[in-house]
Amino acid sequence: MAELKQLTKRSENYSQWYNDLVVKADLAEQSAVRGCMVIKPYGYAIWEKIQRQLDDMFKATGHVNAYFPLLIPKSFLSREAEHVEGFAKECAVVTHYRLKTNDAGDGVVVDPAAKLEEELIIRPTSETIIWSTYKNWIHSYRDLPILCNQWANVMRWEMRTRPFLRTSEFLWQEGHTAHATREEAEKEAQTMLKVYADFAEQFMAVPVIKGVKSETERFAGALDTYTIEAMMQDGKALQSGTSHFLGQNFAKAFDVQFTDKEGKTDYVWATSWGVSTRLMGALIMVHSDDNGLVLPPKLAPIQVVIVPIYKNEEQLAAISEKVNGIAARLRSMGISVKYDDSDNKRPGFKFADYELRGVPVRLVMGARDLENGTLEVMRRDTLEKETLPIEGIEEYVQKLLDDMQQNIFQKALAYRNSWIKSVDTYDEFKEEIEKGGFILAHWDGTAETEARIKEETKATIRCVPFDDPNYPAICMDTTPGVDMVTGKPSARRVIFARAY
Amino acid sequence: MAELKQLTKRSENYSQWYNDLVVKADLAEQSAVRGCMVIKPYGYAIWEKIQRQLDDMFKATGHVNAYFPLLIPKSFLSREAEHVEGFAKECAVVTHYRLKTNDAGDGVVVDPAAKLEEELIIRPTSETIIWSTYKNWIHSYRDLPILCNQWANVMRWEMRTRPFLRTSEFLWQEGHTAHATREEAEKEAQTMLKVYADFAEQFMAVPVIKGVKSETERFAGALDTYTIEAMMQDGKALQSGTSHFLGQNFAKAFDVQFTDKEGKTDYVWATSWGVSTRLMGALIMVHSDDNGLVLPPKLAPIQVVIVPIYKNEEQLAAISEKVNGIAARLRSMGISVKYDDSDNKRPGFKFADYELRGVPVRLVMGARDLENGTLEVMRRDTLEKETLPIEGIEEYVQKLLDDMQQNIFQKALAYRNSWIKSVDTYDEFKEEIEKGGFILAHWDGTAETEARIKEETKATIRCVPFDDPNYPAICMDTTPGVDMVTGKPSARRVIFARAY
Repeated sequence: MAELKQLTKRSENYSQWYNDLVVKADLAEQSAVRGCMVIKPYGYAIWEKIQRQLDDMFKATGHVNAYFPLLIPKSFLSREAEHVEGFAKECAVVTHYRLKTNDAGDGVVVDPAAKLEEELIIRPTSETIIWSTYKNWIHSYRDLPILCNQWANVMRWEMRTRPFLRTSEFLWQEGHTAHATREEAEKEAQTMLKVYADFAEQFMAVPVIKGVKSETERFAGALDTYTIEAMMQDGKALQSGTSHFLGQNFAKAFDVQFTDKEGKTDYVWATSWGVSTRLMGALIMVHSDDNGLVLPPKLAPIQVVIVPIYKNEEQLAAISEKVNGIAARLRSMGISVKYDDSDNKRPGFKFADYELRGVPVRLVMGARDLENGTLEVMRRDTLEKETLPIEGIEEYVQKLLDDMQQNIFQKALAYRNSWIKSVDTYDEFKEEIEKGGFILAHWDGTAETEARIKEETKATIRCVPFDDPNYPAICMDTTPGVDMVTGKPSARRVIFARAY
Repeated sequence: MAELKQLTKRSENYSQWYNDLVVKADLAEQSAVRGCMVIKPYGYAIWEKIQRQLDDMFKATGHVNAYFPLLIPKSFLSREAEHVEGFAKECAVVTHYRLKTNDAGDGVVVDPAAKLEEELIIRPTSETIIWSTYKNWIHSYRDLPILCNQWANVMRWEMRTRPFLRTSEFLWQEGHTAHATREEAEKEAQTMLKVYADFAEQFMAVPVIKGVKSETERFAGALDTYTIEAMMQDGKALQSGTSHFLGQNFAKAFDVQFTDKEGKTDYVWATSWGVSTRLMGALIMVHSDDNGLVLPPKLAPIQVVIVPIYKNEEQLAAISEKVNGIAARLRSMGISVKYDDSDNKRPGFKFADYELRGVPVRLVMGARDLENGTLEVMRRDTLEKETLPIEGIEEYVQKLLDDMQQNIFQKALAYRNSWIKSVDTYDEFKEEIEKGGFILAHWDGTAETEARIKEETKATIRCVPFDDPNYPAICMDTTPGVDMVTGKPSARRVIFARAY
């Protein structure tokens, strides 16, 4: 009999709870390569659902996929001054293209004769290689806009890593668009931020706050970075997706000009935007509990698990006959079902295991249920159980899955909103930031003050929130005031938090 | 007005025709990084269709996806003696993890302080990193089989590259399975070869011959390599997918053992199997003609293009109204349709452009058609045109797409079969190999003879064909004979060809 996997409790050690959960729910594990993870089949199945849905949303907004090289010539990075500052310090460098047998003949060493003339780096992001390509694609306004996305792996040599949240290699999508006007590019960056926010809320059931980053927190090479910020259960923020208005920076760096309708030439306007396997971290941390994962039904690889309880083969056969009919009807409604009649695990083990894996609905059928024409239904979000007639169970489950999707979101929303506070003084700020949450405070707009606050409290400006009627009123307060640290004028409160 | 893109004719220079076609049909282009290509949106859209279909077929045969690290510790390669021989000579080596500003302050250089203790190589294939992981996953027979697939990029430092056919970086899928018995692993390798063959024939419309490789041509580390071999229009073969029975080689190299039902331990049995963006090369080369791409409807990103011919806005409005109805009905049947009413290109240019891109069906509607209630229908495979009533056109197009899928396959099959010959003497062989095609000849089974034939004629053994009632009888001839070169005994004829 397999052994039950115990999780650390969130209240004991949130960070350890997360690490335990990732491993014990079979989502990912450390690999033999420092900072790189293996995404296991169950974790990858969730990522595939995320990918498929986002890809559909990108295509519905007019984007196409393409693929650009993994390796980038070292000199490309230097073309854009801020970009190289941001990425040169954490990149994997390819210097040779061959190994050879060592002198002892029992291993391989780098062949010094196979040294590259120019080193190549593994893409940390692809603006440079893509804009060097766009130079060939763009000549006239007729060639614009270009609305490309790429699903790819990228690498940033992180010193401290955590599965999904921060890994040296991660999977992501990166959109790179080219436009004839500033306005169109700005609109694109905003549109894609909205796609990210809609995806986070409607599919991941993770409420997010959309906003704009401070200059310090901007993407290296952007004129503006828009972000969606989510709140974890420990009161720390997680930046979950960003969209950048790049102005003409990369077009100038790679000399990409176009001729407009009047025959005038100008540099092309750009955006880029990305979400990554980091979303898996948000998904896990926002909803899950001490029993394991809680998955929103829309992203659950298995939506319904059915477990039989039986004393002998005859009972199992009778239960299976009933269950197979239910499973077939559920599948015909587009619901993914697993019937687990394996005989090498006790029902109690199975229950705990599927709770750990966050399967939204569990149906159990025993001998008495068979007699009574009933089933036990358990919903993972509240762990509530009820016994219901088999008749009409499929429609009940379908509605339950919809309800759960809503409930999980509403619960996360209420929780997130309870973490939003407003403070007036720096003392108050220091006190509140220790507790966690999003803290709205006045800021004088300078990088100096921002740096001082970060230094003294480990809090960063998450964003200046966009106006959204769904946000708590406190976020939408645009009254001017004075900076809590310097006393200088502040245009409006901004959102601070400690963040992952 | 855009300019028509002329292709080199196949009869003039087949190789140039292929290179022209890849670029002019917007499939791919060279990147700034030697040997790496950019896959452009239209090319990538075809690859996405290939991916989606294969992924469905993998899942239908019980496989799941996962993701393993891009980078592999150098020492892992050396664990399997033949594997390192096969892959060390062509791999990209990461030696450092940071760049720093150069002394002049105008660029970046490798930071010598950031040298890795052990170099990492970019995966040329993932057996080593995956089997180092499987060691943690496999303890008992209950953990088997493991049926994992990965969609990923890989890198092999090729000296001579051609888009899709041979590039330093390419996209592929690699299945890696683990089994309790030799028989089960061998069956898996055969099953996946059949999946590849079915996909090639039913979706790509590319006829292939399944068979087993000679020892010389095996994957580095395999006990057996199975292959599907396709024939291009120039009489050269293209290995289009391979499936490997790896025996216990990697389990032994990474010490992966399991306990069976009786409590005995043994090494785990393995397979691996992969197809890559090389399939795009086969797809392009097998069907296309001097006008451009010919795509099988099942893999065409746009299956039907509709072009209006009009003198004024009023005519266009009337045509568009009709066309929109037809397009909507076609789409509701699951057919992808583009209505190209752009006014910056002449109809003649559009016709040539969509022929170049291989759109299977073209519908044209002009003012006279509007009066007569007709449409002109052109099918890309035969370039035949006919004028048909609008009434019922949707069903006609649906059937036409099915017919074309069949016709394209049958044409390729007849062509491929015309390239299969049998020879008895080495002189005859040398003469025939100059013309091209699959040549069945007796071989004594030694690597020496194989090497001599390759040296003298540039022909390699493509495979020993499997028995398949659909293959030409000549392939199925298993009569023993004598080697055409050495006169030594030969068990049966094998297939030789010059290959990409």
